Amino acid sequence: MKIPDLSTIEEAAERIKGQVHRTPIFTSKSINELVKAEIYLKSENFQKAGAFKFRGAINNVLSLTRDELKHGVCTHSSGNHAQALALAAQIVGIKAYIIMPENSSKVKINAVKYYGGIITFCKPNLASREETLKKIQQETNACEIHPYNNYRTIAGQATSAKELLEDINDLDYIMVPVGGGGLLSGTALATYYLSPKTKVIAAEPEKANDAYLSFYSGKFVPSVNPQTIADGLLTSLGSLTYPIIRKYVHQIITVREESIINAMKLVWERMKIIIEPSSAVPVAALLESASCHNPKLEITGKRIGIIISGGNVDLTKLPWLNS
Amino acid sequence: MKIPDLSTIEEAAERIKGQVHRTPIFTSKSINELVKAEIYLKSENFQKAGAFKFRGAINNVLSLTRDELKHGVCTHSSGNHAQALALAAQIVGIKAYIIMPENSSKVKINAVKYYGGIITFCKPNLASREETLKKIQQETNACEIHPYNNYRTIAGQATSAKELLEDINDLDYIMVPVGGGGLLSGTALATYYLSPKTKVIAAEPEKANDAYLSFYSGKFVPSVNPQTIADGLLTSLGSLTYPIIRKYVHQIITVREESIINAMKLVWERMKIIIEPSSAVPVAALLESASCHNPKLEITGKRIGIIISGGNVDLTKLPWLNS
Repeated sequence: MKIPDLSTIEEAAERIKGQVHRTPIFTSKSINELVKAEIYLKSENFQKAGAFKFRGAINNVLSLTRDELKHGVCTHSSGNHAQALALAAQIVGIKAYIIMPENSSKVKINAVKYYGGIITFCKPNLASREETLKKIQQETNACEIHPYNNYRTIAGQATSAKELLEDINDLDYIMVPVGGGGLLSGTALATYYLSPKTKVIAAEPEKANDAYLSFYSGKFVPSVNPQTIADGLLTSLGSLTYPIIRKYVHQIITVREESIINAMKLVWERMKIIIEPSSAVPVAALLESASCHNPKLEITGKRIGIIISGGNVDLTKLPWLNS
Repeated sequence: MKIPDLSTIEEAAERIKGQVHRTPIFTSKSINELVKAEIYLKSENFQKAGAFKFRGAINNVLSLTRDELKHGVCTHSSGNHAQALALAAQIVGIKAYIIMPENSSKVKINAVKYYGGIITFCKPNLASREETLKKIQQETNACEIHPYNNYRTIAGQATSAKELLEDINDLDYIMVPVGGGGLLSGTALATYYLSPKTKVIAAEPEKANDAYLSFYSGKFVPSVNPQTIADGLLTSLGSLTYPIIRKYVHQIITVREESIINAMKLVWERMKIIIEPSSAVPVAALLESASCHNPKLEITGKRIGIIISGGNVDLTKLPWLNS
C-alpha cells in the first residue's frame, strides 16, 4: 500500500458513510473573544465510541476480504482504539480480540466489553503487549489493525478533516493533537489535497514532546516515559506517520500541562461539551499564543479549525481537582 | 395580560428568532437501550448564557416599550435567570440591575459581570432579596422581569418545546424539571396547542417536592427549606404558573437524589454533554422507571422528549465526588 492519495481518502469517506457520525462543529463567542480568533471545534467526542478512532477502525474492518473477516481482528490498546475496534467489529459481526494491560482502568475495560470485545490481559509494558498480541494472532489468525501505523487507519482519520473543510471555508489553520500521528497525518493529507492554503499545526504536551523533537531534528525520536495528563498522546510516531508528518505538517507547538488543564476546563465551562485532556492540547496552544507577546503561532483574526479528538474521560479524576 | 395562547407563543418565537440559538437535539443509542425507550434531549445547555432562561429574558426585553427601555430591567436571582437577563439587556443595549445574595458563588457573580449586569448584593433570604429589589426599582425605575411568574417569560420558555415538537414527531411524552414552573407551564401550553396527544410530565426532586404536593392536593404548597443538589429547582410555584400546571400538565414524578446524580453522570459519560443537576431530574425519572417493576411512568417503547434546562455547573463541585 502507498500513502493515501485524494481518491483513497474519498473512497474511505464513501465506505464509512452511514457508519460514522458526521460530527457537529461547535463555536463559542466567548472563547473567540478570549483568543481573538474564529475557532471551529470539529467534535469527534460525539463520534461513535467517543473518539475519532472509530473512523480508522471501521475503515479497516470494512476493507477486509471475505477470508480475513472470518478470523476477526486484533489489536493492543488501552485507550480509544480498543473501544473503536471492538465496536467496528461488532457492527460487521466479527470478533475483536483486544489486548489490554492488566492495570487498565475499569471504565475502559467495561467499554470494550460493552462493545463485545474479547479481552486478553497482559503486563503493562510494550514488550508484553506485543508478545501477547502475537500469541493471540497465531491462535486466531485475526487481522491486526494498528491504531495509527496503517494507511487504512490514516485514510479513515483523514475523513474528519475532509468534513471540516467541506463545512467551513477558508480556514487559516487546522490544529490537532499528536500522539502516534494517525490523526495528524490523515489531517495533513486531507488538508494538502482539499485546502492547500490551510496550514496544519500539531500541538503536543511539552512533557511528551517526541513528535516535536522528531519533526524539527529530522531524526526519529521515540517517546520515553512521557508524563502528561493527555493520556492519548503517550506513544511514539510510527514509521508510516512520521514521513507524512515531516512532509505535510507546517508546525508543531508544545504546551505546558497547566495550559492543557485550563483549556480543558474552559471548553467544558463555556461550551458545555466534554473533551478529554488530549483534545485540549490544541486549545491550550491557542490560550498560550493569545496570552503571549511573542507567540509561537500568530492567531489574531485567524480562522482556525480544531479537531476535538475525543471525550472519554474518567469523571472521577478531573485534573483541575488535583491542584 | 392573559395566559399565552398559541399566537402569543408564535409571536414570541418570531420575536426572539435570530437572538436565541435553535438548540440541538441529541440522542444516545446506549441510553435508549438502557431505558428501552427513544429519548430526545433538547439541549438548552447550548442556549446563550447556558440555559433555557435566556428565551424568557430576551422575550421580555424585546417586548419593552421605548419608555420602559430607557430605565433598564431588574430582577433578583442567584442563578441562570440573572445571567440570562444581563445578557438580554446587553444585547439591546440597556441596563440590567441584578440583586444577588451576598453568598452567591464566584462563578455566578463573574458570569453576570461578564454580561455587563450591575450587581447589588443582599442578605441571602427572600425578604432581603425582595426589599433590595424594591429599593433598586424605586431608584432606577427599572422594569422588573420575573424569572417565572410572568406571562412573557412563560411564552419565551414555551418556544423550546415548540422547536422540539417541530423537529421530532409523535412524541409520547415531553418531560421537564419543575422549580418555579416557568419552563413547565410554557412547555405544557406549547404542547397542548401543538401536539395535544403528547403528555407533559414534570420531574421534581423528592426533597423539593412542593410542586408535586401542590399538583396533587389542589392546594398551593410552598417550598420550605428544600435539600437537593438540583439548585435550579428550589423555588415555589408562582401564582401564574401554578394554575397552568394544574390544568395542562399530566403528571409530576418525584425522584431520589441518588438517581439525579446517577442520571447526570450517565449523560456526561455517554453523551459527552454537560448538564446541570436540575436537568438530570427528568432523566433520573426515566432511570427509576426503567429499573422498577411497577414504575410511576410506563416508558417502554415510548418516544420521549426531554428539555435539558441548562449546563451551568461548578466544575470543582461535582456531586459524584462527594460520596
